[in-house]
Amino acid sequence: MPDAWVSVSLTSLALLAGLVLLAASVNMFGLSKRWDPSLKHCFVTGGSSGAGLALAKLLAQNGAHVSIVARDQAKLNKALEELEAARQNPQQVFRAYSFSVNTEAGSAAAIEAASEPFDGRCPDAFFLCAGASRPGFFVEQTEESLRTGMEQTYYAQAFTALAASKTMVQQGVKGKIVFCSSILGYFSMVGYSTYSPGKFAIRGLAETLQSEFMLYGIDVHVAFPGTIYSPGYEEENRVKPKVTLKIEETDEGATPEVVAKIILDGVRSGKFHITVDFIGNVFRSSTAGSTERNSYALDWVHGLIGYIALPIWRNSVDSTVLKHREEHEAYLRERGLRS
Amino acid sequence: MPDAWVSVSLTSLALLAGLVLLAASVNMFGLSKRWDPSLKHCFVTGGSSGAGLALAKLLAQNGAHVSIVARDQAKLNKALEELEAARQNPQQVFRAYSFSVNTEAGSAAAIEAASEPFDGRCPDAFFLCAGASRPGFFVEQTEESLRTGMEQTYYAQAFTALAASKTMVQQGVKGKIVFCSSILGYFSMVGYSTYSPGKFAIRGLAETLQSEFMLYGIDVHVAFPGTIYSPGYEEENRVKPKVTLKIEETDEGATPEVVAKIILDGVRSGKFHITVDFIGNVFRSSTAGSTERNSYALDWVHGLIGYIALPIWRNSVDSTVLKHREEHEAYLRERGLRS
Repeated sequence: MPDAWVSVSLTSLALLAGLVLLAASVNMFGLSKRWDPSLKHCFVTGGSSGAGLALAKLLAQNGAHVSIVARDQAKLNKALEELEAARQNPQQVFRAYSFSVNTEAGSAAAIEAASEPFDGRCPDAFFLCAGASRPGFFVEQTEESLRTGMEQTYYAQAFTALAASKTMVQQGVKGKIVFCSSILGYFSMVGYSTYSPGKFAIRGLAETLQSEFMLYGIDVHVAFPGTIYSPGYEEENRVKPKVTLKIEETDEGATPEVVAKIILDGVRSGKFHITVDFIGNVFRSSTAGSTERNSYALDWVHGLIGYIALPIWRNSVDSTVLKHREEHEAYLRERGLRS
Repeated sequence: MPDAWVSVSLTSLALLAGLVLLAASVNMFGLSKRWDPSLKHCFVTGGSSGAGLALAKLLAQNGAHVSIVARDQAKLNKALEELEAARQNPQQVFRAYSFSVNTEAGSAAAIEAASEPFDGRCPDAFFLCAGASRPGFFVEQTEESLRTGMEQTYYAQAFTALAASKTMVQQGVKGKIVFCSSILGYFSMVGYSTYSPGKFAIRGLAETLQSEFMLYGIDVHVAFPGTIYSPGYEEENRVKPKVTLKIEETDEGATPEVVAKIILDGVRSGKFHITVDFIGNVFRSSTAGSTERNSYALDWVHGLIGYIALPIWRNSVDSTVLKHREEHEAYLRERGLRS
């Protein structure tokens, strides 16, 4: 029984370590200095709607200078009015810039434009909220739609991170980069082949940069929100496979304002991975690996819950998928995907 | 103290559940039917060298028909000779095809060519081993090099999976798709911004398809090898940042043959995530989330080890990075990346 013995010893060891660290972490995690966005220059992509706009407004309410970037000038103008309504003091600078950020050149141009009112100094914090989702069955995808999916998830943030970090390193600015992945960057299921890979990739990039940017004193954060009740979500649901909608029918989402508040709070308190609800905490803790923890003790509890609950939840997802087989068979034949 | 009470109750519950499942899993996981590659048609990308070639040879030794795909015709010819040397019976068909598989069209053409000797029937199992790594500092990357990284990691496998699944679904073949991610699809660190995102993306795609392909009876597997002593590894180390080499100096790798054997064994026994060594098991179990487990009890032990050991290991990585700051500062100035 050497294996069983190892298992029992390790479990006891882990329990002991857990209790010691529970006590320690109460102090350890309460004392770190919080980041204050007041009169910091915050650059927000995807800043004209959804969680990006909500974050921009919240930053304005917290006294920050805010530059929002998106494509649609009309939406940007409207968003700028909302920022003005959130103004706390006359020094705050609010600007809106129309750029495509899914190229390095576009991102660099947006950052250069946003730096102008600050004598060329680059922003202090980059909130990368650009992105979109267009779910569907994998066998209905093409090279083009897979590539578009990667553009709208990964590249929509990666190139801004690239341009931002080059500028920060060049200028010696010890700033922040905040990525926006998704809970679908922790797991995936039927329908998300154009979305989940890019959201996983964002996690991979953030994990790399969190390590690498210790060289520069630049902080990296990455948020993993679940459903956000935004225009993007409605758009996404219009094309979502029926089986995916069925699996998600009991899901609860959050408003962009709630998500923005939790993300900013996570950034202020220095969290690397930021999750917005209980389920997010369970997935974060259950997939942490060598990722920096938010709380040694609480994450352990969330991890235990995940270890027990997630396989049960996964079984229910699998059984929903399997029940859908016959209907899907007809769907495939109708579209000539099955001979 | 309601939080502490919840913590203790959940811990006890988890322990109890763990013990019950430990007993159950001994039987549960020993009885599933093993996949036999004998006279199955196996299609191997990246099949002319490294782990791809080793897998192709192993499949040949196990009596499979083997089609290898790569770019370099000379290497393919040599690999074909090695397959012949591994032949078990005269019925086995061995072919080599020169195609670029990092487009859907290239992958589809390779699959069509490989189906010809089988009267147009598509392969039974696709082993996607194509890929390459070119590490470096993020601030030295360009839009082009990030895109090349994604081509050489994610797209090198995603489009073959796309073409393969369309063909399998069209023909009603209940086959297999085996992706090759990396242990750097579970975590990342300094130097891997062109590699880790794509390897994380492969995990994201595999997680989606494992759920979605239950609709078709197609099995999805994904391997997460660590260092493989292959020509690709030597190439990679030539350009790897010094700080990354320093962190990896105590790492132990495995030969392509050892890795191939463990991957094929994982596929035969129906594992979704396949890891090749102890460290791989620890990372797999510590990042599982809702991913199908290999063993409920053993994964728990590996997860506990990870929960304790990985933060300690991460601290040592962070301290190596921090010690490198001064040297990196000089490196940046030399290259004009810091003013």
